[in-house]
This record gives sequence, C-alpha cells and structure tokens, in this order.
Amino acid sequence: MSAAPPELGALHERAGVMAQLDRIGALLFWDQNTMMPPAGAPARGDQAAALETVSHEKLTAPELGRLLDALEPWAADQDPDDDDVRLIAELRRDVEKAVRVPVRLAAELSRSAALGQAAWMEARAAADFSRFRDALARHLELRAEYIACFPGFAHPYDVLLDDFEPGMRTDRVRALLLELADGLAPLVAAAAPAPDGAPFGGEHDVEAQRRAVMDILEGIGFDPDRWRLDVAPHPFAQGVADGDVRITTRYDLHDFGSAYFGALHEFGHGLYEAQIPAHLRRTLLGRPVSLGVHESQSRLWENILGRGRPFCAWALPRLAAALPGRLRETTVDRLFHDLNGVQPSLIRVEADETTYNLHVVVRLELELALVEGALAVDDLPHAWNEQIHRRLGLDVPNDAQGVLQDVHWGAGLIGYFPTYSLGNLMAAQFWATLRAELPEVDALVAAGDFAPVREWLGARVHSQGRRHAPAELLRRVTGEELAVAPFLRYLREKLSDAGVIASAERTPVR
Amino acid sequence: MSAAPPELGALHERAGVMAQLDRIGALLFWDQNTMMPPAGAPARGDQAAALETVSHEKLTAPELGRLLDALEPWAADQDPDDDDVRLIAELRRDVEKAVRVPVRLAAELSRSAALGQAAWMEARAAADFSRFRDALARHLELRAEYIACFPGFAHPYDVLLDDFEPGMRTDRVRALLLELADGLAPLVAAAAPAPDGAPFGGEHDVEAQRRAVMDILEGIGFDPDRWRLDVAPHPFAQGVADGDVRITTRYDLHDFGSAYFGALHEFGHGLYEAQIPAHLRRTLLGRPVSLGVHESQSRLWENILGRGRPFCAWALPRLAAALPGRLRETTVDRLFHDLNGVQPSLIRVEADETTYNLHVVVRLELELALVEGALAVDDLPHAWNEQIHRRLGLDVPNDAQGVLQDVHWGAGLIGYFPTYSLGNLMAAQFWATLRAELPEVDALVAAGDFAPVREWLGARVHSQGRRHAPAELLRRVTGEELAVAPFLRYLREKLSDAGVIASAERTPVR
Repeated sequence: MSAAPPELGALHERAGVMAQLDRIGALLFWDQNTMMPPAGAPARGDQAAALETVSHEKLTAPELGRLLDALEPWAADQDPDDDDVRLIAELRRDVEKAVRVPVRLAAELSRSAALGQAAWMEARAAADFSRFRDALARHLELRAEYIACFPGFAHPYDVLLDDFEPGMRTDRVRALLLELADGLAPLVAAAAPAPDGAPFGGEHDVEAQRRAVMDILEGIGFDPDRWRLDVAPHPFAQGVADGDVRITTRYDLHDFGSAYFGALHEFGHGLYEAQIPAHLRRTLLGRPVSLGVHESQSRLWENILGRGRPFCAWALPRLAAALPGRLRETTVDRLFHDLNGVQPSLIRVEADETTYNLHVVVRLELELALVEGALAVDDLPHAWNEQIHRRLGLDVPNDAQGVLQDVHWGAGLIGYFPTYSLGNLMAAQFWATLRAELPEVDALVAAGDFAPVREWLGARVHSQGRRHAPAELLRRVTGEELAVAPFLRYLREKLSDAGVIASAERTPVR
Repeated sequence: MSAAPPELGALHERAGVMAQLDRIGALLFWDQNTMMPPAGAPARGDQAAALETVSHEKLTAPELGRLLDALEPWAADQDPDDDDVRLIAELRRDVEKAVRVPVRLAAELSRSAALGQAAWMEARAAADFSRFRDALARHLELRAEYIACFPGFAHPYDVLLDDFEPGMRTDRVRALLLELADGLAPLVAAAAPAPDGAPFGGEHDVEAQRRAVMDILEGIGFDPDRWRLDVAPHPFAQGVADGDVRITTRYDLHDFGSAYFGALHEFGHGLYEAQIPAHLRRTLLGRPVSLGVHESQSRLWENILGRGRPFCAWALPRLAAALPGRLRETTVDRLFHDLNGVQPSLIRVEADETTYNLHVVVRLELELALVEGALAVDDLPHAWNEQIHRRLGLDVPNDAQGVLQDVHWGAGLIGYFPTYSLGNLMAAQFWATLRAELPEVDALVAAGDFAPVREWLGARVHSQGRRHAPAELLRRVTGEELAVAPFLRYLREKLSDAGVIASAERTPVR
C-alpha cells in the first residue's frame, strides 16, 4: 500500500467542517422543538436555510471534486474497508447527488418544507385536507423536478427512497412490506381483544412521570453528563456532538405509556448517536447510515427489549415505586401481556407493535400512487380512508385522524415512511444475532445489566457509522439479507408467550 | 441619485447568509452556557471553529470584494445615511479586517476560546491560577499573532479594543478610565458605611425568586412569546434572532439581589437586541454597534432605572408580595438608600455602582501590561492582588475571588473589560438626553409605564443597529462626545439624594 497522498489531509479538513455544520443543524432543530420562543420560528427558517446554503456550497465546491479525483486512484489500491477509503467513496456519493440538484431547487425544497409544515399544521387543526392540498401539490411538483435530476434510477420513487435508505429500491421495499402485511393479518385476526384499561393508566403528574422515566433511562445507560431529556410535542432524538446526545419525550397525565415508550424509543436512537466513535464524528462517516437502521435501534429498545418479559421484570418494581396506583397491583406477566395487546387503531404513532406496520403499508401504497401519477392529490383523502378500511378494518372519522395525522407529508418528506418498517425488520434480525451471540441476554436484562447489550450494539452496529450501506451492514452483522420472516417469528413467539395469541403453533394461516 | 446597481441584490444575499451564521453562533453560545451536557464541551469548540471557518470564508470571498468594488462608486453618490450605503461601508470595514487574518488563525482563536473556558472553569473551581496559566498564555500568543495582522494601529491593544468598541483607542480609553477613577475615589471615601444586611437578604427559594423576577420583567417589557429567561452561572443575553431574545440570571438563596439585578441588567441587553428592526437583522447592520453601547443599555436598566427611586417605588410592592420577609417591612426611601450603598468588595459583578468602575480600571491596567509585555502571565495573580489593594484597599484571599473571578480571560476576551466602563459613561449621557426629552420619565416609571422609555431607546439607539460607529451614535443622540462628567454628576446626585453621601455640594474633592 502506498503512503497516503497529501490531499487526504485537505479532504479531512473539509469533511470535518461539513460534519460540524451538519451537527449545528441538529442543534438548531433540537432548539426549535424544545426551547425557542414561538416568535422565533420565521427567523429560524432563515437560519436553517443559510446553514443549508453554506453546506451545499461546501459539498459542491470544485476544490472538493479535485481532491476526490486526486484521491480515488490511491484509494483503489487500498483495503476497501479502510476508513479513508470509505470516506472517499461516501463523499463521492454525496457530491454526485448534490451537484445534480440546482441550488435554486435545493433552496425551494427547503423553503417549501417550512411553508408546507405551516399549512399542514393549520389543516390538521381544522381537520380539513383542502387547506393542505396546495402545499402537498407543490411538494410533489418539486419532487418531480428533483427526481428528474437523477435519470439513472429504474423507478421515480427510488430517488426519494435512496435519500433516506441508501441502496433501497421501490420493487424491493414494496415486496417486503406486502409480505409483511400478509404475515401480520393472521396475527391481528388471532389476537384476543386488548385489555380494557391501559396498563399505564391512572393519573400521574408530570414530575412523577419524569422521575420514573429518568430512573429507567439511567438504569439502561442514560448518562446525565452526556445526555439530556426534554419535552417535545413530537418526540425525537438528536446527536448534537460527541458527548452531547439529546432525547425528548412527551407527557400524558392519564397515560404514562406515552412518556415511557417515547423515552425508550428515543433512547435507542440516542444510543446509536452516542456510540458513534469520536474519530468518525470528525468526518462525514460519523453519522447513522440510514433512517431504517436508526429506527431498528429505537424499536429494539422500545419494543423488543422494552415490551419483553425480562425488561418488564426489571422495570416493574422501579416503576411501581415511582408511580403509585395500578402498577402496584400488577404482576410481571400481566404487564408483559398488557403491553403487547393487539388492537387496530387509527393513529400510527399510537399503534401497537403488531398493527403498526399496516399503517406504514398504507402510506407506502399512497406515496407510490402519488409519485407514479396514478393518484391525484385531490383524491388522496378518499384513497386514505379506503386503504385504512382495507388494512385495518376501520372507518376514518375525519382528516385529522386520517390523512393529516403525520407531519411527514407536511414537510415534503416522501419516501420516509417505509424506513419505519424496514427498521422493524432489521431490529428483529439484529436481535436474533444478538441472542445467538449473547445467549444470557434475558437474564442480564432481568437483572438490569444492560452494558453487554449496549456494548454489542456499539461494537457491531453503532461503531460503523455510515462506513457501509445498510444492506452491507446488515450482512456483516447478521450474515443475512433483509427479510420479513425473522420479525414475524419474533412477534409470533412473543404474542404467544404473552398469551395474546393462543400459541405459536396454532396461529391461523391463510 | 442613480438606480441601485444589480450587484446590490447579490450583496444583500451574501450579507443575509453571514448575518444568519453570526446568529447561529449566538445560539451555540447560549446553548453551551445553559443547556449543553458537560461532556459536549470539546465538540462544541469544534463546532464554533467550523462556523467561524465558513463565516471567515464568506467574508474573505473574492466575489464579495468584487461586489463592494462595484458598489462603492455608486454609494459615493448616495445619501451617506442610506441603509445600503452604510451596509457597504460596514462590510468593507469587516472585509478589510478579515482578509488580514489567516483562516487558520481565525479558527484557532475560536477553538482556544472554548478550550480556555473549560480550563478556566476547572481552575476557578480549584481556586488555582496555575491550572489556567497555559490556556491564558496560549490566548496571549494567539492575540500577539492577531495583533501582528494589523500593523496600522498606534498601540497593540488598539487592535483588540477596536473589535469590541470600533473606533476606540488605547490612549483615549486609558485617559477616560483614569479620570473616572480619580472622580470616584472621593465619592467612595465620602460614602457612609453600607447597611449591615443586604436589602434583599433573607432566604428565598429559587422558584419564588424566579416568579418575582418574572413579574418585574414582564412589567418592564419581557414578552414570553419572544423572550426566554434561563439560569447561567455567569449571566448573559443573546439576541438569537428577530423574535428570539434570551436572557439569563443566577439565583443565590440568601440574596435576591443577585437574581434581580442580573435579570434587570440582561433585560437591558435583551431589549437592545429585541428592538433592532427586522429589516436590519437580515443584513450585517442588524447588530448592536459595540459592547460599550450594549453595556450602556444594560446599565441603564440595572442601575439608572433599577436603582432609582421611581423604580423602587413601582417595584417594592410587587417584590414584597412575591417575597415574604424583610421587604414587607421596608420603605421606598429605605430600599432606594440600601440599593445604592457604597462598599469596596472583591467581586466585580457584585460590586456596587460606585466602586464597580474601579474593578474595570484594575483589569485595563493588567491587560495593557500583559499585551505590552511588561507583565508575565506567571506574575498576573500577584499583580492582580496588588492592583486590588491599590484601587479598593482590599486583600484578595484566593485566586477564585481574585484573578480567576471573570470568564472573559478564560475565553480569551482581552480588550473587552473597558467597554463596561464606557457603557456606564454612555448610559449617563443617554439618560441625561432622555430626561431632557421625556421630562415626565420619573412619574411614568413610578407608575409602571415603561413603554415610553422603551420606545425612546428603540427610536434613538436600538433602531440604528450598527449603522453608525459608537462615537457617531452618541453624538447623534446626545450631541456630545464621550465624557466622564455626566456619569459623575448623575452618581453624585443619586448618592446624595439617597443619603449615601452627605450632599452633592459637600462631596470632598482632592
């Protein structure tokens, strides 16, 4: 192997600045959603746009292209797994995408995101899709322009998907999600009706809930010197920097589950960010590789661990100590059963683990129809209601509980939803591998020893940053391709174990 | 006047991005000092450096120079007071300064600020200057490099001063501050001993203090939709954006005065930021023009208004309602007297209005000696203690209560301290003009009607942003040059009125 050429230092310097700008954007987002006074919103849009402008300028600077040109012949002779080789390849990918998009279009996309969100908010408050119609039409117009910048893709939706889940393609994601829906339907049909009262029902003041959440979080790995927990109406996590991870949750006076599972979910996202090594953080490799992989981490903590029996056994006495009431009268088995109830419902973010993916399938089908031009924007609410009836057997009472429920389309995020289900599938595959390599995991979790789980995730997944595309990462960790069966197997076993379906063997098949 | 040339739009676009980057830096600072988990500090330094790098690149971009070259001939024929003409002149000033500083040095200055602050914090906690010594030496090294970039100044300290107080020079500021010290000495000597118990003494829990502070703040103009109040160990204010002003204070369980005057002081800073017009905010003219002018606004609210008899009359019943104890037994006259006590003390930020400027003189003399090379870093603690004894007659028990008490040197801010006294002088000059133009001001304040004061400050000072250099702004508002006499006159009258010195006439002179 030849010595590193002098251009490598210059590349690192540029990548370092871009990586920092990216994380400054994360701080702006966090602040906007937790701390910013309301009147600051319009100016925050200008700040985000200015940051986007300089980041885009950095990425499309001719000097960066020259550095990559100079370095690629050297990289071709190196170990393809080397960090610098991976950095060069990933930067080339970013540059290739950025230079194809005119600055005007990039600016217009980010402006319409802010405007569309405002229109969506107003429309949702009025439960009236017609107030959001024009903004969505504009999003689709701009996305058509964006898609036209990338003529090499087989399906127009591929272009959008690739920004959230690099390497994923439309035919593949559609096939996976339809197979998933087919596998879930009999589980939903077989499930006993969900219990009457939520296991975390009863009134608890916010401070008591916050203390209970913090007790659990500190037990699983939240370090107050390196993490923050704040309140946000739509919970999220941001890795602001090495040593600075911020998660949020929300509190419902009458349902502790909202704060609890919100926090567990965001902890999973936060741990991914927290365990990315500092040396990768200083380059553009120091980011989670995709939304699907990110979601696999949040789902793993929220659902696979958080709704599992060993976790319930560890958490129940802690929660019962912090929250007087119903929890003091329940048992681990009862809690485990109740937290895994199956009940079709209207709102995705409140759906149980089993029906959740059906909500995603609905959104994927509608997005594909919109992008393909098979569905007109004006017909979207009707198509939504039809799909919800078909997949979940429910009637949608109004647009606020239907087509307007999620912020994503408001912000122009099309191609994002499928990553939620991809995350669920990957989580089950990672989990199966973790169990095989750490067979004592149930006992560790029940005893509150979460370090081995964190370390396994850190070593196998988090430490990789975006060194490898999601499919390659999954292959390296699990030896498998992305698949539906491990998730269905995991879910069937858990529902059976929790007594929600009769038994794994007797699950009806069609 | 000829039509605006097409380059003007491009200039505005560039100035807009730079203005936003500048305010993003303000958010980073605010967050670091209020919200950031401790372990995030090193990475925050990298983020600040990256932001500084791109800002510096923007300011030194050849295209900006070309735009200014093209616009200056046009500007020469316009009204010199026109916003665009002022923008072109101020940008030229910024560019001229920036092109002289290598980007490496600019980034290094900003990184060392973050690192030095961490070293200072540790040293202060241990009351041990030796732990901060290397960081300060590094700051001085970098400042020597920085000074060398500007060979045109008469004194090396001029270069540093000019960044905080454009147009101010070392000989002038030294002469003003020594004249001020000479004028203050007889007032200090003549003052009756300060009262035994602080007027705001007694124990009050933080939440009660916070409510009392908020009640006062909302009474004088704090709008919760546009402002935030948070806790910071070293209070500060940041105008993050139009509609987003953030102030901080700190709470001492045994002295409400700490939170109260901290909040009034930062309110003055915040109001300046809040009342800069949105159209200036979108250019680089939308910033406070200097630290001295900024400080004039904070001192006006903290001392001239806040420690004045009319303000005491308005605030006392509100405070007594919020804070049980001593305040319910006091009178307006008594409060007015007690809040204006004169008592030499060790800590600048806790000093009374009269002795405060003596602390500044100490720092100016030491900074001059450090920058001139007449004082070695290792000898600084000793020199500090000597100066404090000379100016205030006190012995310094340890470094934490001496040379390490202020954050400024930790962050490498040298040339900053004198602006505090310049602000005091300007505040008195602005106040004299305000009283002349708004003769009913005492009655308005006593009645809690602060809008006319806010509006006067907005119209005459805040709305100008940095359209005019500080000396020119002062001349336009007051018709005067910067001077010591108005401050001494104001102070002598107040101390006499409050019964702290015998009478204005009988003040001893030497």
